[in-house]
Parts: sequence; C-alpha cells; structure tokens
Amino acid sequence: MHIDVIASIGEARSDELAHKTVIVIDVLRATSTMITALSMGCRGIIPVETVLQAKELHKEGDLLGGERFCKKIPGFDYGNSPLEYSNAAVAGKRMIMTTTNGTRGIQKACKAEHILAGALLNGKACAQTAADFRRDVVIVCAGTQDAFSLEDGLCAGQIVEEIALLLGEANITVNDFGLVMRYGFLQVKSDIPETLLHCSNGKRLSKLGFIQDIRYCAQMNVLNIVPVMNNGMMGIHKKANH
Amino acid sequence: MHIDVIASIGEARSDELAHKTVIVIDVLRATSTMITALSMGCRGIIPVETVLQAKELHKEGDLLGGERFCKKIPGFDYGNSPLEYSNAAVAGKRMIMTTTNGTRGIQKACKAEHILAGALLNGKACAQTAADFRRDVVIVCAGTQDAFSLEDGLCAGQIVEEIALLLGEANITVNDFGLVMRYGFLQVKSDIPETLLHCSNGKRLSKLGFIQDIRYCAQMNVLNIVPVMNNGMMGIHKKANH
Repeated sequence: MHIDVIASIGEARSDELAHKTVIVIDVLRATSTMITALSMGCRGIIPVETVLQAKELHKEGDLLGGERFCKKIPGFDYGNSPLEYSNAAVAGKRMIMTTTNGTRGIQKACKAEHILAGALLNGKACAQTAADFRRDVVIVCAGTQDAFSLEDGLCAGQIVEEIALLLGEANITVNDFGLVMRYGFLQVKSDIPETLLHCSNGKRLSKLGFIQDIRYCAQMNVLNIVPVMNNGMMGIHKKANH
Repeated sequence: MHIDVIASIGEARSDELAHKTVIVIDVLRATSTMITALSMGCRGIIPVETVLQAKELHKEGDLLGGERFCKKIPGFDYGNSPLEYSNAAVAGKRMIMTTTNGTRGIQKACKAEHILAGALLNGKACAQTAADFRRDVVIVCAGTQDAFSLEDGLCAGQIVEEIALLLGEANITVNDFGLVMRYGFLQVKSDIPETLLHCSNGKRLSKLGFIQDIRYCAQMNVLNIVPVMNNGMMGIHKKANH
C-alpha cells in the first residue's frame, strides 16, 4: 500500500485523489468537530463550501454548523468548537456544516473511492479503516489558507505510524513528506497538547479564547469513530465483515 | 529572529525572500557539491539556469559542472557528484554550474539580502553565518521537480535547531513547516545515512550507482565553509569582525 501525505488543500489535485482512500485532516477544528458530533449521535454531516449552500440545504430539524475566521456564523446553531457539539442536542439530527478549510478538503476529494475524516481523536480507528479498504491512501492536511498547519501534519504522521504498525513496514511505501511527518510525530507524541499550543493555529485559537478546544483536540485515540462519506453525507463507518 | 522553512522551490515567492537571509538547501546534491568544491580551493561558483547560459559564460580556465537527470552534461568537466569535486584540480578555478533544482533555488532568491548554500555537511556553520547576519531567515528546500525532498527538509530542521541553540528559544519564531522539520530532524539525527538511503532521492541515486554520494552528503558538520552569493558568484563567506 502506498501512502501520500499532502501538505495543504491547495496542493491536492483532484485527479491524484481519484479511486483512492482519501483521509482529510483538520485537527483544529473541523474534523475533530465532525468526529465529536457523530460520537454524540448526530445522524450525519453534510459538508458544503459556502454559507449560502448551507442555508439552501437546511431543512426543518437540521442543524447548521460552521465558522468563518474561527467564529460562529450569524444565524447558525453551532460554531466550529467540538465542545459545543459534545451535546445531546445533536443526537438524531442531520448537520449542514461549512468551515474555511476542512470542508473544502472534503469537496476536493470528490473523485476518491473513499473519503474519511481524520483527527488525533480517532487516528488509530482511521488508520484501521483505511487499512481495511486496501487501496492506496492519500492523507490531505487541510492546513490554513493553503499553508501547512503543524497539527494536521502531526496527525498525518500518527496515521502513517498506525498503518505501518497494522500492515508492517515491508508492506507500505510513503512519500517523503509523509516520512518526515511520521518522524515529527514520533518526536513529539508524548507532548502533543503543549506542541499544539505553540503552533500557529494553537496560538491564534488561544488568543480567541479557545484553549480548551486545543486541549480537547490534542487527545489521541479517544474516539473509535470514523466519519466516512456516503451519498454526500459524512456518517459513521460501519465495518464490513471481512 | 523569524525563520520560515519553505517546502520546495515552486512554493518560494521571490517577494517573500526579499531583504532576508535566504539559505538554499539541495543536499542531494547541488549544495553539498558547491561546499565541497569551495573546500578544495575552487575560487567561486556561478549558478546558472540553463546549459546554454553555462556555455556562454564559460571562459578559458573555467570549469563547467552540473547535471540533467542526475547525470553529467555532455561536454562538461564535472557532473553533480561532490566526490568528483573533492579533487585538487578545482583549486583556483571558477566553476560555472547548472543543476535541475539547486541552482534554480539560488536564482529565485535574487532579491534576498544574503544568499547562502546549506547542506548537512555545513549545517552548523551555515546557522552561525545566518545568525550573524541578524535578519529574518528563509530556508528554501530545493526539492525535486517542485516536490518536497526529505533530505532537504531534515537539513532545514538541522539548521533551525542550530540557530535555536545559538540564539536561544525565546529569541526565535519558526513557521509550522519549520517546526515539524526540526522535530523530524531530532527524531532521526543519529541515523541520517540510513534515513537518506530510504527517501525518494536516496533510492533514485542508489539505483544510478551514487550510493557513496549519499553516504558522503549524509555527514553532518564536517565542513566549516559557507558559500555566500557575492556579485553573482557563490564564494566562501569571510566572517566579519563583530
């Protein structure tokens, strides 16, 4: 199995994602939020690019979630803080969601065979699902405004490491960018919360008062849930019987 | 001092390099070769983009060096193997050099205040020179055909680490990409030769018979020489008296 890690959405080309298993990572905070919402019983998440699209798709009973400039969109039910979604009120509901980077990443993967949402919270489960699909994997770090974000890279490294443990070193190849993300992850894995507080998005979110979000999103492998795209909606992957 | 690390030449924008100290890294093999040639007494290296430019600039007594597709250019005196340049015949000579990635990186930095050539061979000396210049630093990983190359990233991490040791953690800031390169370097620094043999360029050069080049270029801090651009020619930096 070959694994490519891509530094930001701007560098991902749809054709290179075609027919593969694509894992989109936006640790701070879109994919962490999706995973959390599904863990609380949210029925599914429809990622859309614009606020207008979100409002047009919205039907009675749906929830609207998302952010612009890290803040909740006026008229929306939820922002992009995973802690807001850690709430029984999302149970059974469909969520229409638009965020600056994470949902764009999912849109870009439209030609992929499988689209998964990964974060530190579910890294191990995500690696397991990707390994089960037995296709080449592309891990797309969402990044921020087309620039690389450390937290997404470290999570990519985590997933590469987990896939390597599952399949064995001899059975995977990894592109150079993925190799260095794996090395970086191994170097700081015992101190992820502190590392995230000092990266670019960590500092930005801290200033905006979201320090608890960072600590929450820095937890590894605490949720055994993998959002998978199915007919335009990200829902919990139900493991096939192999 | 702020340090930005850029993943490949394609991502470097000339304007972002303006008025800064730019360190161009092409470990396998252009900058390793330049450093080696200067260590053997080569008078200076003029990096040019095309074979035609190299031939036009060439005067009697000059040497022509460079590669296309990792191989020596027909009619040139030298290829791009640092071991060829480890040769008394280069002493006192001017070298006109064209390589696929490294010389392009140097050209792109034309608006920089200082342009340095870095490699694992001279990482520490390069960090010292950049620290002495007291300007913000941009480290440009040459990469390969606009894709990130592991060996350049690890060398960038080495230089960030050395600058941090020189100036103190509190006196530097580093972009997210630079942070992860530093973590990656720290993870593998005791095993750089093996790591380089398994990255993309390492495998390519091994197949072409250049395994000794990889082992040579994987040595850290063995040459105390920093090529610096001066009037279009990369020559040895003479340290100012502070």
